[in-house]
Amino acid sequence: MSDFAPVPLKNIKLTDSFLAKWVNLNSEKVIPYNIQRCQETGRIDAFKLVWKPGMPNMPHVFWDSDFAKVIEGMCLDLISHPNKKREAELDKYVDLIISAQQPDGYLNTHFTVVEPEKRWAHLGRAHELYCAGHLMEAAVAHFQATGSRKFLDCMCRYADYIATVFGPGKKQKKGYPGHEEIELALCKLADASGNKKYAKLAKYFIDQRGQKPNYFEEECKQLGLSVPSSFAYVQAHIPGREQKDATGHAVRAMYLYSGMAEVADRFGDDELLEVCKTLFDSVAERNMYITGGVGSTEKGEAFTQDFHLPNAYAYAESCASIGLALFAMRMGNITGETKYFETMERAVFNGILSGLALSGTEFFYENKQEFTRGLEDVVSHTQYGKRQPWFNCSCCPTNFCRFLAQLPQLAFSYSESAFCVNIPVNAKIDLPMAGGRLKATISGNYPLGNSYKLTIEEAPKSNVSICLRIPSWADNAATFFNGKQQSSRPESVFSAEGLFQKGDELEVRYELNPHVNYADPRVSDAAGKVALTYGPFVMAMESTDNVTADMSTLLIDTTKPFKMTTAKGLPKGTPAIKGAAYMETAAEPGHLYSTKPPKRKACTFTAIPYCLWQNRGEANMAVWFRTV
Amino acid sequence: MSDFAPVPLKNIKLTDSFLAKWVNLNSEKVIPYNIQRCQETGRIDAFKLVWKPGMPNMPHVFWDSDFAKVIEGMCLDLISHPNKKREAELDKYVDLIISAQQPDGYLNTHFTVVEPEKRWAHLGRAHELYCAGHLMEAAVAHFQATGSRKFLDCMCRYADYIATVFGPGKKQKKGYPGHEEIELALCKLADASGNKKYAKLAKYFIDQRGQKPNYFEEECKQLGLSVPSSFAYVQAHIPGREQKDATGHAVRAMYLYSGMAEVADRFGDDELLEVCKTLFDSVAERNMYITGGVGSTEKGEAFTQDFHLPNAYAYAESCASIGLALFAMRMGNITGETKYFETMERAVFNGILSGLALSGTEFFYENKQEFTRGLEDVVSHTQYGKRQPWFNCSCCPTNFCRFLAQLPQLAFSYSESAFCVNIPVNAKIDLPMAGGRLKATISGNYPLGNSYKLTIEEAPKSNVSICLRIPSWADNAATFFNGKQQSSRPESVFSAEGLFQKGDELEVRYELNPHVNYADPRVSDAAGKVALTYGPFVMAMESTDNVTADMSTLLIDTTKPFKMTTAKGLPKGTPAIKGAAYMETAAEPGHLYSTKPPKRKACTFTAIPYCLWQNRGEANMAVWFRTV
Repeated sequence: MSDFAPVPLKNIKLTDSFLAKWVNLNSEKVIPYNIQRCQETGRIDAFKLVWKPGMPNMPHVFWDSDFAKVIEGMCLDLISHPNKKREAELDKYVDLIISAQQPDGYLNTHFTVVEPEKRWAHLGRAHELYCAGHLMEAAVAHFQATGSRKFLDCMCRYADYIATVFGPGKKQKKGYPGHEEIELALCKLADASGNKKYAKLAKYFIDQRGQKPNYFEEECKQLGLSVPSSFAYVQAHIPGREQKDATGHAVRAMYLYSGMAEVADRFGDDELLEVCKTLFDSVAERNMYITGGVGSTEKGEAFTQDFHLPNAYAYAESCASIGLALFAMRMGNITGETKYFETMERAVFNGILSGLALSGTEFFYENKQEFTRGLEDVVSHTQYGKRQPWFNCSCCPTNFCRFLAQLPQLAFSYSESAFCVNIPVNAKIDLPMAGGRLKATISGNYPLGNSYKLTIEEAPKSNVSICLRIPSWADNAATFFNGKQQSSRPESVFSAEGLFQKGDELEVRYELNPHVNYADPRVSDAAGKVALTYGPFVMAMESTDNVTADMSTLLIDTTKPFKMTTAKGLPKGTPAIKGAAYMETAAEPGHLYSTKPPKRKACTFTAIPYCLWQNRGEANMAVWFRTV
Repeated sequence: MSDFAPVPLKNIKLTDSFLAKWVNLNSEKVIPYNIQRCQETGRIDAFKLVWKPGMPNMPHVFWDSDFAKVIEGMCLDLISHPNKKREAELDKYVDLIISAQQPDGYLNTHFTVVEPEKRWAHLGRAHELYCAGHLMEAAVAHFQATGSRKFLDCMCRYADYIATVFGPGKKQKKGYPGHEEIELALCKLADASGNKKYAKLAKYFIDQRGQKPNYFEEECKQLGLSVPSSFAYVQAHIPGREQKDATGHAVRAMYLYSGMAEVADRFGDDELLEVCKTLFDSVAERNMYITGGVGSTEKGEAFTQDFHLPNAYAYAESCASIGLALFAMRMGNITGETKYFETMERAVFNGILSGLALSGTEFFYENKQEFTRGLEDVVSHTQYGKRQPWFNCSCCPTNFCRFLAQLPQLAFSYSESAFCVNIPVNAKIDLPMAGGRLKATISGNYPLGNSYKLTIEEAPKSNVSICLRIPSWADNAATFFNGKQQSSRPESVFSAEGLFQKGDELEVRYELNPHVNYADPRVSDAAGKVALTYGPFVMAMESTDNVTADMSTLLIDTTKPFKMTTAKGLPKGTPAIKGAAYMETAAEPGHLYSTKPPKRKACTFTAIPYCLWQNRGEANMAVWFRTV
């Protein structure tokens, strides 16, 4: 079993911080807005099961998952932000969902009213088990938030039914989801319900994936569909345990790997855990943008090959970065290794938050690493290159609802004798441990400022470990216990074990400096360039703040000192880097190509956090810059 | 009227040279191979008009154009390479084509046997007038090659019929081609037949294009098709005379602009000529790869916006570069300005020849400026990133047949009192001029060597001008008349006028050095990088000759001298540049991003002509490199 588990939301009370603002925005804007859009588009009424051919708003195969994610978000958010009115609204939605359950336990709006004859017929593409997974996660969240078992029991009945349909038995289908998600959801359902058979079903799906004969191939033949040359898109080209490279649709991959990690952990399956480690390294060491974005092409929203990380043509779907953070969190908790939390932090502060506008009502589906106005349709699916109020395929907006609501859980882990700060958000913790309650306050100005500390308000009566992560970007970090400096060269964790007392203070101090980062030069679009970071923030330049809209003509002068300032038109305190730069123009006007090098003119540059770009109107943007 | 016209093929006899090898390859391999593929795929038998529903090889809407281009190539090639057997074969094909003509003059296999009810119903997308245009060009070539009028007369009948269908009359359609080509073909038909009305029809098509109400929009409505948001793809978003920016499908654009130039020239339409100049500059100054490739995206095979010239995602269709060369040739001949021939030469020696393998039987559809194995499907239409034996849409292979056959015509222009060498291929010229025949020999080792000369074998008995183009890449050029140096700082043309005598020699001498080229830094993928050229050749690095397959890790040391050598495994004498380089590796292995700059190790690089890449097996390739 894991070394650690996420601290439950009910044991965390966030106080003001950069991340708390996003969690609050989710509660105040993102969730109500997504409910409204689900209502307008028919995603809620779909559960009334009244749709008939010829009527508008035909329930789409993935609609259930969209609404389920919003419901999950509502539930989790209610733990952090109790609200009677919203609880009543939630109860109504949950009753509506439950009412859509069929006598045999089945629950899917599309395959109940649109294509009932196709139930389980097209696992490869029809999102049927994927929708079930998100409904299960929502049900678990509902149980955690309200204590009511009605939604949980409903989804257990659904899972019981699914367990009769799929499995090794003679009359059972040997299939597994085309879009993974249910694997991790079944593990959560097993925990919440106490019924381990759901975790076994998750293990079945994972073990069955990619076995020969290929289930999806047989399915295509039965449906009279052409058989794709490979099922790599859905990670079913080879068995999961043989997979070494992050492959196919990036969101699917992240959810599969998360499910594999859950199963590996629950069954003590070291072989499967090794596969997860290998796949994580494939992502983080060879296939991840510096922003934590994953998925290098819009074609299949997929991984391509090692080191292919194009900037303008990046896909880096918001959901994929969310999936990466969730995978990384699991790997961090299972192994206790900080490298996973480093990647989680990278994804959260950059590739995830970039997908949500400060308004809370506009979204990126793709998170470009370089953007030039006018090229939206060239470098992306139509519409996805700009912030949009909604999408026909609205997985990303609805995913924010549930991800931001659970964000505090990513920040802290615990075991019965240990408490870990993975992302030091300001919070009050009240946690039962083996020796009694641990009450503590985490405070600082993270991710800005130069320190953060944990103050013990109440200590367990037995030895506990307290671990504070020291970010890799923290320069000259030092650790202090009750004001006394500890080891002068701390590693990536400040770990203290013992009998703590009320008033004990553990502190991490460091310098927060802008950093110049280089990519592996095999990354063609980043070779010879640098990206600036400031703490966990990848900094980007927007045309808004700079002397030219032609971002490729700017060079950063890394020989001169950078100056920290604040960004105009962004929330108070948003850090910006200002520095010396040069702007190039062609040597011979009117000549696209010349044997004379371009001319250079001194100027300054301003870089803002990548996650906040395109919040001040449309602008050109880049992350990677040449230097002098 | 034009200052100049292309010298007819019958007046040119190529002798051995770099380009003559390609012209001969076309005769020996490319044409017979394309005939074979047209036969195998049903493109020839389509003209038998025996296809019925349920039979294989349904004639596609663009098939007629494919075969027409091969026939045009066969005809033109017969002028340069007389061959009785092939002439007999040609005669058979021509009779077959003629046999497909309908009583009213109509000639289109698809709309005769597949969708007869749709004749002229879908001009926007159905290639109907495009096919007619290529058949007309083939007929003109046939007349030139054989003196027989049968094909020409057939196509005049077709054009006569088209002129009854389209025009300003009350009962006439106000349409124009969705894929331009017929405009320039009608001008050629007018010249060959002596009937100016065909040129007037060309002018009608051009003037009508993009007028309101938009013909294609009306057509979509009539067909019950959704109306696109813009008709920029087919250059019909605004009237042609209002167009200032190269727009839409690149091949269509090149053929339209060529047709506009022909019409402007024939009707003394200075306004239209200005439009052509503006559009040419839009292409050559802001939207053209250094290889003469045009079309920056596979989406619509189209132009995007100024300075957007991605390397790996380049489209740069072979046909588009052919179209650019043909447009540039026309502009050069009309205006006498060498800048057009510079671009023509750039396209010929790079973006065009790159599309044809040295085998003569493999082709590029897209001409990438950077290529990494494994990314074929990511950066391009499936299959198009590699050399292929044929395509379902085989416009490019068939276009080589006719383009290479007419290549000698691009090299030389003339008027009744002038003769110009635009590309100094070795040749013997025998040309009637106002004062009698001009017989001359062009000799040298162009595009290699350090000089080329024109020797008069027989001179007209009146004053003539002889113009030898001095390429912009020729260093320290000097010009000599009968061995005596002329102006010490010659411009882009060595122009001599007077009464010439047998034995007179005009010579251009220059240094041929490798050059380092810079792009306008607004070109994001080339900013901070250099491309090497040697004479008209853009030089590329293939992994085959270099220390690494990761081309982005290589930096050229431009501070050290380059050394000219020959490329291994390529035809004898193929130039290669060898020089000092550095190869970078990540500072911290396993770290995709690091605050430490990559490590550098000295090495050498070898660059070969871009047009010859991927002729020695699959390789990674790049044109633009960083420098130290």
